[in-house]
Amino acid sequence: MRFDHDTLAQRVRFASGAAAENLAVEIKGLGASRVMVIAAEAERALARRVAAGLPVAHWHHEVAMHVPVEVAERAREEAAAHRVDALVCVGGGSTTGLAKAVALTTGLPIVAVPTTYAGSEATNVWGLTENARKTTGTDPRVLPRAIVYDASLMLTLPAALSVASGLNALAHCVDSMWAPRADPINLALAGEGIRALRVGLPLVAADPGDLEGREHALYGAYLAAVAFASAGSGLHHKICHVLGGMFDLPHAQTHAVVLPHVLAFNAPAAPDAERRVAAALDAESATEGLARLRARLDAPRALRDYGMAESGIVPAAEAILAVVPTGNPTAVTLDGITRLLHAAWEGAEPR
Amino acid sequence: MRFDHDTLAQRVRFASGAAAENLAVEIKGLGASRVMVIAAEAERALARRVAAGLPVAHWHHEVAMHVPVEVAERAREEAAAHRVDALVCVGGGSTTGLAKAVALTTGLPIVAVPTTYAGSEATNVWGLTENARKTTGTDPRVLPRAIVYDASLMLTLPAALSVASGLNALAHCVDSMWAPRADPINLALAGEGIRALRVGLPLVAADPGDLEGREHALYGAYLAAVAFASAGSGLHHKICHVLGGMFDLPHAQTHAVVLPHVLAFNAPAAPDAERRVAAALDAESATEGLARLRARLDAPRALRDYGMAESGIVPAAEAILAVVPTGNPTAVTLDGITRLLHAAWEGAEPR
Repeated sequence: MRFDHDTLAQRVRFASGAAAENLAVEIKGLGASRVMVIAAEAERALARRVAAGLPVAHWHHEVAMHVPVEVAERAREEAAAHRVDALVCVGGGSTTGLAKAVALTTGLPIVAVPTTYAGSEATNVWGLTENARKTTGTDPRVLPRAIVYDASLMLTLPAALSVASGLNALAHCVDSMWAPRADPINLALAGEGIRALRVGLPLVAADPGDLEGREHALYGAYLAAVAFASAGSGLHHKICHVLGGMFDLPHAQTHAVVLPHVLAFNAPAAPDAERRVAAALDAESATEGLARLRARLDAPRALRDYGMAESGIVPAAEAILAVVPTGNPTAVTLDGITRLLHAAWEGAEPR
Repeated sequence: MRFDHDTLAQRVRFASGAAAENLAVEIKGLGASRVMVIAAEAERALARRVAAGLPVAHWHHEVAMHVPVEVAERAREEAAAHRVDALVCVGGGSTTGLAKAVALTTGLPIVAVPTTYAGSEATNVWGLTENARKTTGTDPRVLPRAIVYDASLMLTLPAALSVASGLNALAHCVDSMWAPRADPINLALAGEGIRALRVGLPLVAADPGDLEGREHALYGAYLAAVAFASAGSGLHHKICHVLGGMFDLPHAQTHAVVLPHVLAFNAPAAPDAERRVAAALDAESATEGLARLRARLDAPRALRDYGMAESGIVPAAEAILAVVPTGNPTAVTLDGITRLLHAAWEGAEPR
């Protein structure tokens, strides 16, 4: 047993229906008197409701996917112009990402109110896009001081999107078990995340208005982000990144299709991870547990359903071979990855 | 699901045989050039070895149990006299506690090198004793910035002491599952701690020189401290505190005797905790798993073996009734506590 682990300081306030109340407590605790609330147009009304009790100096509604540099610059200028002393973001990953971009240069504290399972609120990772190139980094200033989780804010997130996003979080958990900085602490948090998602996602899939299911899924997504940020990208995420970049495949669906194949590929050489995933899924084996969960969720099965051509498999396998993370439990060969991709492409049973 | 959880920032470097190397990296990372090393007389040689590569401005060897105020004052004066810019503590709970007492008034950063399973290094709790009265509190300044865990430093800790200390850590885990600030995150960390202690303690009991067993036990003790500091004292610790104070019973042995009775008392009303403890102990039920582990460790069974009189049971039960933590899963009555104490006193099977 040999590891280095950085635990990041953050407060989590988790209570359904209490977002406004908990947000007010956190802003008061920061001693802030000029808050900038960041929320996309679609969340404008929600943000007004959640931030009703705050000393808001500025409402900012220009949010864009992947945080373009020019959007970040405008938000930073507004924060300066309004002499803002704290940032509140209400929304998904892009909204949290914009708050982080402002914090990166200003050092302003963030309180995050997430409305999806993206998980950015629980990490010190920032991302900015310039000329279609995404730059990412880590910085302690971008880690939100507090997260206000309110599962009732997610009741209107459609079931299909919730399941896809939840399976993405599940992939974060599983992949963090053999990622380059995997350690026992990450494994434990990831195992708890899988357990919570296993309980929550089927309830949400059956009824998007199921608050208990929403709570479990949200809690699981939080742990997924903590574990993944600490452990780094494993083989699964490298594969999905290559596939997404080469064939413009949808993010969450790609994760959902590829995950069981990577699990089947790595599990035989990673007995501790296998046992933890199996236990968290309440199954005899990890692969069996994941297959059962995916069946209950009617999860996507084949990459070809999303427009990938069979001729893409070999070039993709070659590209993946160049970015295999250090320490992957099963040795990665061109042949092994090609077979994995073929199975994912045609929707075969993972082996 | 409703909780507030504060995650505290701390780095853990866990590697057997690498204490000196990892300590040097951490001190360098702090930019410190005048280190005060705190270690009891008994650990003087060990401390010299571990801190060999550091810019030491002062070696401090006056350490006393429960951190008497006058001992803390002298250490603070020495830190000031030697213009110290960082503290390193090498030792058990009292040594870490002294470093915390210095940090409390000076704000100096601490790097802790623990040599027992006490766990103080993972918490923001400080304690000072004045006129035989112990005062405790929490302060962010006393949380060590980093912990350097090296299980090889513990190979000479005797088996009986290791087991007692390890069962104390196990009690921290179990009790944090129904303590006042229990939450799912604490439950997950505590479950992982129980799992690690279940693996490690029997190996240590069979052979105190078993490094793998030492690693698992040390890792479990770390998680126990994190979970317990976050969740607070549950019923078990309140009982042990009262018994220790009234009858001057030995700390670790009292914990070892009482724990299974509190588990049997609370488990029926705490199904989630019961399931988690059972899973972590790899058993059908929590009580069965704990009984099996205690049998393997030849753990203490009866309070009367440590000098407690039967006539003490009723007064103790009355004193405990006054300090029952809020939210204990099973309702605590004088009759219930009296029966629990009687069973622990005579070493009966927990029910």
